[in-house]
Amino acid sequence: MDEFSFIDSIRPSYYKQPSLVKGIGDDAAVFRPSGQDVVTAVDTMVEGVHFSRKTMSPFYMGYRALAANLSDLSAMGSTPAFYLVSIVVPEEWEQEELNELYTGMKSLADEYSVDLIGGDTVSGDQLSISVTVFGYVDRGKSRYRSSAKPDDIVFVTGTLGDSRAGLEILLNDLSIDSKEAAFFIERHRRPVPRVDFAQSLLSIERVTLNDVSDGIASEAHEIAEASQVDLHLTMEDVPFTDFIKKWFNKSYKEWMLSGGEDFELIGTVAGEDWNVVEEAAKECGISITKIGTVKEMAHEQPEVYIYENNEKKKLMKSGYTHLKRGE
Amino acid sequence: MDEFSFIDSIRPSYYKQPSLVKGIGDDAAVFRPSGQDVVTAVDTMVEGVHFSRKTMSPFYMGYRALAANLSDLSAMGSTPAFYLVSIVVPEEWEQEELNELYTGMKSLADEYSVDLIGGDTVSGDQLSISVTVFGYVDRGKSRYRSSAKPDDIVFVTGTLGDSRAGLEILLNDLSIDSKEAAFFIERHRRPVPRVDFAQSLLSIERVTLNDVSDGIASEAHEIAEASQVDLHLTMEDVPFTDFIKKWFNKSYKEWMLSGGEDFELIGTVAGEDWNVVEEAAKECGISITKIGTVKEMAHEQPEVYIYENNEKKKLMKSGYTHLKRGE
Repeated sequence: MDEFSFIDSIRPSYYKQPSLVKGIGDDAAVFRPSGQDVVTAVDTMVEGVHFSRKTMSPFYMGYRALAANLSDLSAMGSTPAFYLVSIVVPEEWEQEELNELYTGMKSLADEYSVDLIGGDTVSGDQLSISVTVFGYVDRGKSRYRSSAKPDDIVFVTGTLGDSRAGLEILLNDLSIDSKEAAFFIERHRRPVPRVDFAQSLLSIERVTLNDVSDGIASEAHEIAEASQVDLHLTMEDVPFTDFIKKWFNKSYKEWMLSGGEDFELIGTVAGEDWNVVEEAAKECGISITKIGTVKEMAHEQPEVYIYENNEKKKLMKSGYTHLKRGE
Repeated sequence: MDEFSFIDSIRPSYYKQPSLVKGIGDDAAVFRPSGQDVVTAVDTMVEGVHFSRKTMSPFYMGYRALAANLSDLSAMGSTPAFYLVSIVVPEEWEQEELNELYTGMKSLADEYSVDLIGGDTVSGDQLSISVTVFGYVDRGKSRYRSSAKPDDIVFVTGTLGDSRAGLEILLNDLSIDSKEAAFFIERHRRPVPRVDFAQSLLSIERVTLNDVSDGIASEAHEIAEASQVDLHLTMEDVPFTDFIKKWFNKSYKEWMLSGGEDFELIGTVAGEDWNVVEEAAKECGISITKIGTVKEMAHEQPEVYIYENNEKKKLMKSGYTHLKRGE
């Protein structure tokens, strides 16, 4: 593959971001921030590890790789602006498939006027997509995991476990002749990063955000550890789609806690700002649910607890729970 | 591998760049440019394609991956500040080797006070290192390939073909009991990106820079195409290490043109600024050589010509030359 000519062939005729100075076509890209902070993250997905041909066409591989990255920017309260793509492509891949992968990314990028500003396409044995994203955020307005405080409300956007349900349907060739199956598959292949919602929280001074890539059990622990607090969640409040119970009665609870890849946002906010969060969700057309409370650390280590049937359990990072006797 | 704990385990205790707001440990990193432009590039190296265990230990794999990226920043006239690393690691890799790879990167990063601010470590079949770098450059001072003008001097730093010679020695187990072989091997494994040199050209209004990753034949074409000019080079002026001739008499000329990976800089500058370029090289302790001249396009397409024994030849991107009869 001629690396130069490929990246050149997908160079857009114009860029949407006014702060871009130089896009694809030199040794590096150049942009000019105007007083805002720059937020950046990288995320790599490998075929056979993070996805497979059975579950994703090249279009969705591309879409999802960028979605995971935009989700990270959302979790920082940042507005996405640019992305770089580095792909390792096996020989058997056709040019057409590679184009489709980039088209998948572009379909999402265009929704937020995010520009592809460079990248690298190299040969290898196993497909791997590495996306670096860049966003802007007002100075001091980045949303850290470390900002949770006792008495904060813990909330989560959307519903959980859907992506994992979609994966199950795809892996096991379960009936996809239903609207419900199609919903789960769409949630798996084409998650919507909560970019708009994160931006509409701008008026709030302090809000903690973390995106649900590994499952809320893991993300809740990240918040607890970074903020040195305990999180107390209520299982009955964790939001799910009605029909996930019908399809996957045995697994749906586990998936809600640790299925991951829903790319929703879990966060915490002071009680007096809760109405702003609710209003923001409403404006963005997504649901928002209060699932718990932040408390001071009861012990030396930050912990996440989950209440189910009025029983208090410790929630492990993995999503596994066990009873907390005598506490 | 526990992805979170690995990146966390290499989180530095402090960062050197004052403009960093948030490093490793959240959904993304945050930095605060102060009026300068931001320059960014990504580069991916795959084991078995770009390097092998035979030629590189994990330390050098890391070093070289970052060096290639800093070289891109140099070619933009930019001062490096941060990097993100995304690695696909095969199961058989030991933790110790992965640490060594990061140590290799850090050894170079520390020379320029460049901070590791995030990344991703995922499992896969084939080792692949994807580095994204960030640098600053004064507004409007980025050095583009498109800025070459007729009558410019074409120059190159250092000597060419050394990295390719080092590779040859490593691949074929040629004697490494000599200082000369060690020199070539060092040039292959531990190239020095021309960061300092590129920065000391700041007083010049216009200078074209491109880094020698694929060989000057290819890079000269990139300048010619981006600037819509012809480049006229003189083979006898292309700089090489004395003893490369002795070791590789049959190949060294080809390697000087297309061996690549020397990570020197090729550039063009107006004659009146040539003394500044010479002075900058002297200050940085590197050699600089005038190897040709920029001319207006003689035909419809930009071309690169090379003169050898007073004969004018067309220089192909690949480094291949052929006689230009009747011109």
